[in-house]
Amino acid sequence: MRDFLPADVRRREYVIGVIKEVYERYGFEPLETPAVENIETLMGKYGEEGNQLIFKILKRGVHEATGEADLALRYDLTVPLARVVAEYREKLPKFFKRYQIQPVWRADRPARGRFREFYQCDVDVLGSKSMVVEAELIAAASDALVALGFDDFEIRLNHRKVLTGILNSAGVATQKQNELLVALDKLDRVGVREFVSEIAERDIASEPVVRILGLLESIERLRIEHSEHNTEMYKKRHGLILQISRIAEALSPGESLKVQIKDPLTADVDTREMTSQNIAHRLSGFMPGDEDGGRGLADLKSIITLTKGTTAENRIVIDPSLARGLSYYTGAIMEITAPSLSGSLGGGGRYDNLVGTFSRDEVPACGFSLGLERIIVVMTEREMFPPQLVSSPADVMVSIWNEESIADSVALAQELRSGGSDLRVDLYPEADKLGKQFKYAAAREIPFVAVVGDDERARGEVAIKDMRSGEQRTVKRADAAMAIRHHLDLGQKESG
Amino acid sequence: MRDFLPADVRRREYVIGVIKEVYERYGFEPLETPAVENIETLMGKYGEEGNQLIFKILKRGVHEATGEADLALRYDLTVPLARVVAEYREKLPKFFKRYQIQPVWRADRPARGRFREFYQCDVDVLGSKSMVVEAELIAAASDALVALGFDDFEIRLNHRKVLTGILNSAGVATQKQNELLVALDKLDRVGVREFVSEIAERDIASEPVVRILGLLESIERLRIEHSEHNTEMYKKRHGLILQISRIAEALSPGESLKVQIKDPLTADVDTREMTSQNIAHRLSGFMPGDEDGGRGLADLKSIITLTKGTTAENRIVIDPSLARGLSYYTGAIMEITAPSLSGSLGGGGRYDNLVGTFSRDEVPACGFSLGLERIIVVMTEREMFPPQLVSSPADVMVSIWNEESIADSVALAQELRSGGSDLRVDLYPEADKLGKQFKYAAAREIPFVAVVGDDERARGEVAIKDMRSGEQRTVKRADAAMAIRHHLDLGQKESG
Repeated sequence: MRDFLPADVRRREYVIGVIKEVYERYGFEPLETPAVENIETLMGKYGEEGNQLIFKILKRGVHEATGEADLALRYDLTVPLARVVAEYREKLPKFFKRYQIQPVWRADRPARGRFREFYQCDVDVLGSKSMVVEAELIAAASDALVALGFDDFEIRLNHRKVLTGILNSAGVATQKQNELLVALDKLDRVGVREFVSEIAERDIASEPVVRILGLLESIERLRIEHSEHNTEMYKKRHGLILQISRIAEALSPGESLKVQIKDPLTADVDTREMTSQNIAHRLSGFMPGDEDGGRGLADLKSIITLTKGTTAENRIVIDPSLARGLSYYTGAIMEITAPSLSGSLGGGGRYDNLVGTFSRDEVPACGFSLGLERIIVVMTEREMFPPQLVSSPADVMVSIWNEESIADSVALAQELRSGGSDLRVDLYPEADKLGKQFKYAAAREIPFVAVVGDDERARGEVAIKDMRSGEQRTVKRADAAMAIRHHLDLGQKESG
Repeated sequence: MRDFLPADVRRREYVIGVIKEVYERYGFEPLETPAVENIETLMGKYGEEGNQLIFKILKRGVHEATGEADLALRYDLTVPLARVVAEYREKLPKFFKRYQIQPVWRADRPARGRFREFYQCDVDVLGSKSMVVEAELIAAASDALVALGFDDFEIRLNHRKVLTGILNSAGVATQKQNELLVALDKLDRVGVREFVSEIAERDIASEPVVRILGLLESIERLRIEHSEHNTEMYKKRHGLILQISRIAEALSPGESLKVQIKDPLTADVDTREMTSQNIAHRLSGFMPGDEDGGRGLADLKSIITLTKGTTAENRIVIDPSLARGLSYYTGAIMEITAPSLSGSLGGGGRYDNLVGTFSRDEVPACGFSLGLERIIVVMTEREMFPPQLVSSPADVMVSIWNEESIADSVALAQELRSGGSDLRVDLYPEADKLGKQFKYAAAREIPFVAVVGDDERARGEVAIKDMRSGEQRTVKRADAAMAIRHHLDLGQKESG
């Protein structure tokens, strides 16, 4: 788990601030829940692996010696939300739109970008089955990423019912469907041999799998044909097509899918909407007459229509290879990725049955979670933070001339703070040599140092040293705050 | 532990925002540490009672069955700070001024205003022994309370060395001093009989105690003489004097202190500085030649001089009856109270030896903690929050006219959000009857509802209903955002 020193905290607060502002603009309201939940609330909600990764808290007092746990640290923000909605149903509006940005804890093995304490950044709408909900969640997440400076992301969209329709129409046995989905979900990340042996081990018939691979391959090709002139994206799609065809060849030798890829550099300009229309058409052709699949496709088309005119419009695409953790999703699922990044920037979906596990009422729900930690890592690597963020802890430091003038320096710091110029004022606490005090201010990148020597005091003046230029000017003490504010604003204009 | 629904979160965020702004103005920087610390870091730092109140986390995986704990939830923000300073010494500035506003956990029995998860709001300076540090901490905490709207608080100031001086000069045996301090700390809260029997049980000689009570009584009288015409304060002081004299009478019958109290309504106007000067004089007379006590008094005088011209100036007073939790304090100690409130609004002090328990370097330190939870309770009871805070989740709600116009409503919501008018826009998600949608907006106190019926759409207009007046006006769609912003601003001017 990590300590966040001041520069880290400022970066995190900047990202959280931008996301909050966007979510508030959509009418979402803040919710906070305790770090600690009753252990029964959490156990069994995240699968067997989840149960093991939950931090459990020992009973207190005389029960401590029993080694039993009755409480546990929050594992995500969705289960606590479902508990809150079940618990406070009458206090909450019919449509509860909430955002929640708080840490969660998982006893995972730490790795690059994976931590045992990390923030989740969730936005959810409870109480409606309308696709307006999905559209607004997607638009809001997209707005947040744009506001943070991301521009190369893609919003992949799929639907639990479309997945079921594909599996049924391909002829995958019902009891094998979940296992195949888990395997397909990591299609792009595992080796050919591994995938094939997993299919064999789980005793899944290979013929339906090859059929599905054919569908996925043809859709990847569609996407390449319609793709922007984006080399990263092209490589990624091309790689996936090769992977699919190798797997298909291994599963069903001789009948391999033919790979003919149009050079994207000569392809038409991207129209994601056209891509999605074509993909929907192809999916519909793959599962003719499948009722569930048809309903899922209709939802996806609604979502695409309803996000027109938002920042999501040209980024959204139907992607039948998207599966996501399946435990509680029941409808549309989505994930935001960027071609140049492994892993996702966020994801979510509809989960209409989760609140029902805490109360008799079924409350439909849909949510989206932005990957705050990954966003911060990427923004740091790409230097996407505004330059004034990593700046100094103060706008000006008041120095101390000598032991006798300490009280006067404290008073000057106070005048500068309350002068209505909104200055952040540090005060050197000791009567050290002035050179040492200047050095300290320079090391901390504080742009100005105020000095009141005996002469200045006699004349009611303050000397202000600009630490970047080395220039020093003397101003009337009453004007000092305004003078510093003026030069700060000038400096910011020049650098920004 | 508590869930914070949206209105609660907004209130908390308001208070935290005000405090942060004040602390930033003093050049303090934010620090965040993980919720979870190694169990050894925390155990033994808070006394025997503290050890029991720490939430301990079970080892994971195969070790879970052992029932052993290796981690624990943060119990306060001071010990983690000391760990951070020891761990990152070279990365931090020589004078590290940090604020930290995060939750802590204590397995206390919950009571009014006491919770098992609660926020602390700490500000500390590490690296200097200068009294400038104490003065800035006190001024900043005072500024924060003033900014939140508190005006009747008092800053009580004492010093660990003054306490030692008093105890030595009164003739309290060294090994009994801590026990007597613990008893004196609750002088105003326990009954006479309880206090007397505690002194007897702990085998503390009563003669020195009576001597100290005499000192405290005379100082309380001084404070009443100089006190403002504040009835609450008068009652409190008067009560304490009676309590002291009753205890003295019980400890040493016949020699009781005579209680002669001047009516405060005829007393001079308050000059806390004069009070403190007089108190210092009296203390100095009580412990003539005591070196420690003299040094402590000099510190207190410095602090009072250095807080002149700050919002703390007329609120600060030397109070030798202030003891506070003694475990790690080494110098000045302070506490903020209000005559109309039981308990304190915050407190702190100097602890020069704590960092040394984590590293070879001794790093002098001083800190102050504002009682965030109590502040929020008091502000809620006294209705001190700005009225616009408890307001609606959105500035305007876009309604949905019928199934066919859903996409158009989504688009309108998007236009209003991105119109540069900084509006928070909710969107009703379903094509319910319009009356139902209006009712929903009214219940949520959303001030405006936008409606686009078939006529409005044909004319490129939007109808905007003012939910407070019931008035409805029609504007060009392109002007809708500005029109709503204009009326919102008008409404705020009228109500504020």
